[in-house]
Amino acid sequence: MKLLEERIKRDGQALSKHVLKVDSFLNHQIDPELMQEIGKEFANRFAEEGITKIVTIESSGIAPAVMAGLYLHVPVVFARKRKSLTLSEGLLTASVHSFTKNETNEISISNKYVQKDDHVLIIDDFLANGQAALGLIDIVKKSGASIAGIGIVIEKSFQEGAAELEKLGYRVESLARIAALNDGEVIFKNENVEELV
Amino acid sequence: MKLLEERIKRDGQALSKHVLKVDSFLNHQIDPELMQEIGKEFANRFAEEGITKIVTIESSGIAPAVMAGLYLHVPVVFARKRKSLTLSEGLLTASVHSFTKNETNEISISNKYVQKDDHVLIIDDFLANGQAALGLIDIVKKSGASIAGIGIVIEKSFQEGAAELEKLGYRVESLARIAALNDGEVIFKNENVEELV
Repeated sequence: MKLLEERIKRDGQALSKHVLKVDSFLNHQIDPELMQEIGKEFANRFAEEGITKIVTIESSGIAPAVMAGLYLHVPVVFARKRKSLTLSEGLLTASVHSFTKNETNEISISNKYVQKDDHVLIIDDFLANGQAALGLIDIVKKSGASIAGIGIVIEKSFQEGAAELEKLGYRVESLARIAALNDGEVIFKNENVEELV
Repeated sequence: MKLLEERIKRDGQALSKHVLKVDSFLNHQIDPELMQEIGKEFANRFAEEGITKIVTIESSGIAPAVMAGLYLHVPVVFARKRKSLTLSEGLLTASVHSFTKNETNEISISNKYVQKDDHVLIIDDFLANGQAALGLIDIVKKSGASIAGIGIVIEKSFQEGAAELEKLGYRVESLARIAALNDGEVIFKNENVEELV
């Protein structure tokens, strides 16, 4: 998605070979018009899938997921994160380890809002090692619902998440795919491809 | 806002005299089309204020805030909640006590995204005792920015938050104002008024 790549180039900060900071438009400050375009793009890519529900995770997944839900005309459910869950009645839960923060959270959604006849699109802001997406997949599977695919705003293709999800047979649609972060510069996957043509 | 009141009547659950559950369309499952209408309504009510930024708090404030930002054409910044902040460089912080959860969180936003020339609209999903709104006001004041007002999706008018904010001189625009929760029924403030006319 050209608009998103341009924004990442302009406002993203490659702080190291692994860390891309996009808190000026995606995960702290949010650009609503960019989110709208992102929502439309997800809706276009999954238009033929018969999606009935979008599942995301707080907090940074919410804005792109709600915009996708607006254009797919389906409700959005966001999983909550907790250090540990004492009360879990009526909750579908999974464990998600964050390598960045070195902590494991329980994530959960109510079993009222994802049910076995749902066909779910999972959306998240980032895909790196895939832990959050795998946790959301786990929860959706526990509900008995089917999974149409996974929509990601920014994929760090140099980490294992995308390959792992595709190996498991899931359709992954990432709007920006980052091949590398080198010396403060962001290299997109399609840029490499264009160079080879 | 009629559409919102009707939705609360239909899908909200008054679990006690103090607890209204709206997790089927606002704070766990989200109805994107309702959020769009809520965003338009906030934008209309604050259209003449010269808003430059919206500030909200994760997670349930994000969807209505992003929709308001879309129609006011301004960025949204969401405050993050943490049990305690070890690292606070570059962060504007405030303490927010939750009576419901009986815990105090530090909330924070980056000083990069709210600055002294900003004119801020604060948005949140609920206004009850006002702790979250007061925390957001505290943060915005620390940035040196001015506050245009506070936009609330659901105000529990029988708790002290709205009165306290108005006493402090803030314009509070609540899209639904709940006068009471009685025997599982939701009574709106304007219903009482209409009865008196």
